[in-house]
Amino acid sequence: MSEYQITKLNKVVRGSKRATYNIEEIHQILDDTFLCHIGYVWSDGAIVIPTAYGRDGDTIYIHGSLKNRMMTNLLEVGKASISVTHLDGLVMARSAFHHSANYRSATIFGNVRKVEDSEEKMKALQCILDHMVPGHWNNIRQPNTKEINATLVMAIKIDMASAKVRAEGVVDEKEDHELPIWSGVIPIKQVALAPISEKDLKEGISIPESVSKYVAKNKLS
Amino acid sequence: MSEYQITKLNKVVRGSKRATYNIEEIHQILDDTFLCHIGYVWSDGAIVIPTAYGRDGDTIYIHGSLKNRMMTNLLEVGKASISVTHLDGLVMARSAFHHSANYRSATIFGNVRKVEDSEEKMKALQCILDHMVPGHWNNIRQPNTKEINATLVMAIKIDMASAKVRAEGVVDEKEDHELPIWSGVIPIKQVALAPISEKDLKEGISIPESVSKYVAKNKLS
Repeated sequence: MSEYQITKLNKVVRGSKRATYNIEEIHQILDDTFLCHIGYVWSDGAIVIPTAYGRDGDTIYIHGSLKNRMMTNLLEVGKASISVTHLDGLVMARSAFHHSANYRSATIFGNVRKVEDSEEKMKALQCILDHMVPGHWNNIRQPNTKEINATLVMAIKIDMASAKVRAEGVVDEKEDHELPIWSGVIPIKQVALAPISEKDLKEGISIPESVSKYVAKNKLS
Repeated sequence: MSEYQITKLNKVVRGSKRATYNIEEIHQILDDTFLCHIGYVWSDGAIVIPTAYGRDGDTIYIHGSLKNRMMTNLLEVGKASISVTHLDGLVMARSAFHHSANYRSATIFGNVRKVEDSEEKMKALQCILDHMVPGHWNNIRQPNTKEINATLVMAIKIDMASAKVRAEGVVDEKEDHELPIWSGVIPIKQVALAPISEKDLKEGISIPESVSKYVAKNKLS
């Protein structure tokens, strides 16, 4: 299976030529950031909340405090919709109508399960942290029992997914190319800056390789 | 009135010391980007979609194609939830438990209205474009009647809103400060790179001031 199933729920109708259901491509979009927006239904309306996540195969892990409204609601409902978006550029056309953005955007629909097993819970927390900064879990003090018990961890198994990708230049009406109007793309990138160490670090402590690697990978190149 | 009303819907319960309902602060969070995530209810579940927006006072304008499922659904339901999030840094604690992010995040609840009046529609489209790159509307070919008619524009009047802001260093357990573990903040920033002009521009066309200003304001400083 190299694609997610397509149903009425996840089928991309508008701009379908930019759509993909390819599992590898969608996982790549998920792995290139760690911030998602989760939607849930509350009191007949939708509420959207940003949160961090990790991915392990077809499972997305999120975590929060025991009383987190978004999480307790997701558990009650049993399903979640997640959006992950990378903004890659502003597409400045000659006409207002053809202004657009370059982006990679994934929409995930999944079933929600509370992680109760303490071994899976620990594995999920490692997944979330290492998804953010790979390898950093082994550098830090891992959660103790009290902290584990104070954390709600949820597994969202990807059931359906789609992605849309725009990665090209300006598309203008043919006749507009004759206009004396500038057009082009402004690339946009989320970058990491040099880490700011805490002031009271124990003597001889330097920035670990996991952090240096993360910054090098995400710096403005 | 300097604050949005607080109800059960928008009251921040978790991490309430980081919450604000201040109108000016929330508008600033909205004005510092142009990408939001909108949630809507479809077939009993929530769906989250990224889209561009503009702000004019207490009104958020979005636009799309006439058959856009998110937009037609929002119109049917008459209310929308919008999330706008800036990721400002990774907060790397000594303990897994105290890992966090620095961010500015606004959650908006509003009533949805279809913009039918052609004058307001044009104003809304200008608002969206100028929210992205201020002043650029006057540099480009503005929409003709056919384009206006092919565009669905919606006004979302902010009814309730809240924001959460974290902008500080690491908060670790007191005893963990003695550990030989690095901790600090990795600043994260969304930056604009040098514009890439289209290759077939008419001779003598240079990058307009609106674009140069946008790039200068958003470059890595």
